Amino acid sequence: MEEAKGLVKHVLLAKFKDDIPQEKIVELITGYAKLVNLIEPMKAFQWGTDVSAENLHQGFTHVFESTFESVEGVAEYVAHPAHVEFSNLMLPALDKVVIIDYKPTFVKF
Amino acid sequence: MEEAKGLVKHVLLAKFKDDIPQEKIVELITGYAKLVNLIEPMKAFQWGTDVSAENLHQGFTHVFESTFESVEGVAEYVAHPAHVEFSNLMLPALDKVVIIDYKPTFVKF
Repeated sequence: MEEAKGLVKHVLLAKFKDDIPQEKIVELITGYAKLVNLIEPMKAFQWGTDVSAENLHQGFTHVFESTFESVEGVAEYVAHPAHVEFSNLMLPALDKVVIIDYKPTFVKF
Repeated sequence: MEEAKGLVKHVLLAKFKDDIPQEKIVELITGYAKLVNLIEPMKAFQWGTDVSAENLHQGFTHVFESTFESVEGVAEYVAHPAHVEFSNLMLPALDKVVIIDYKPTFVKF
């Protein structure tokens, strides 16, 4: 196994509140995606909705994954005014949220 | 934004039970990683432990991410005897688990 030097994945699982309309959800996701252009240490962003069949998603419906080059980069992102502004829109729209960062070890045999 | 054709990410967040010894956790993670060699549709595997500072990880301590080429590939993996055997060891060791699959949309502006 091999750990990518410094690389940090920032994973957010979300369930939006039932009363948040679909167009508001789209707007929030677009706002999240735009952070890549505004916050230098945020290197990549991908997202998607649950397509699992195992029924272990615990009600979460959306996955967002951002990539950073270091834990310091994540800290810079978290404190960045564009992120703070976005969070203040996003978090109140969520019924459930988990945010976890990890340094991925890629498996090679 | 652009959706990778068919690609499916299979994300598992875990918190091991407090009485599971560290060497057992290592053994389980190694067993998880070995599935890449045993189950054809499982194309890649990466994992890591929580390094987040935002305190929104809701007690989850480990992230595991597997990559598949399709939702059918995930179904084949879930039903594969090697996965069933592994799950029967892994799931009872977990205090909390979320498993969610998504087709990543990669953001490019």
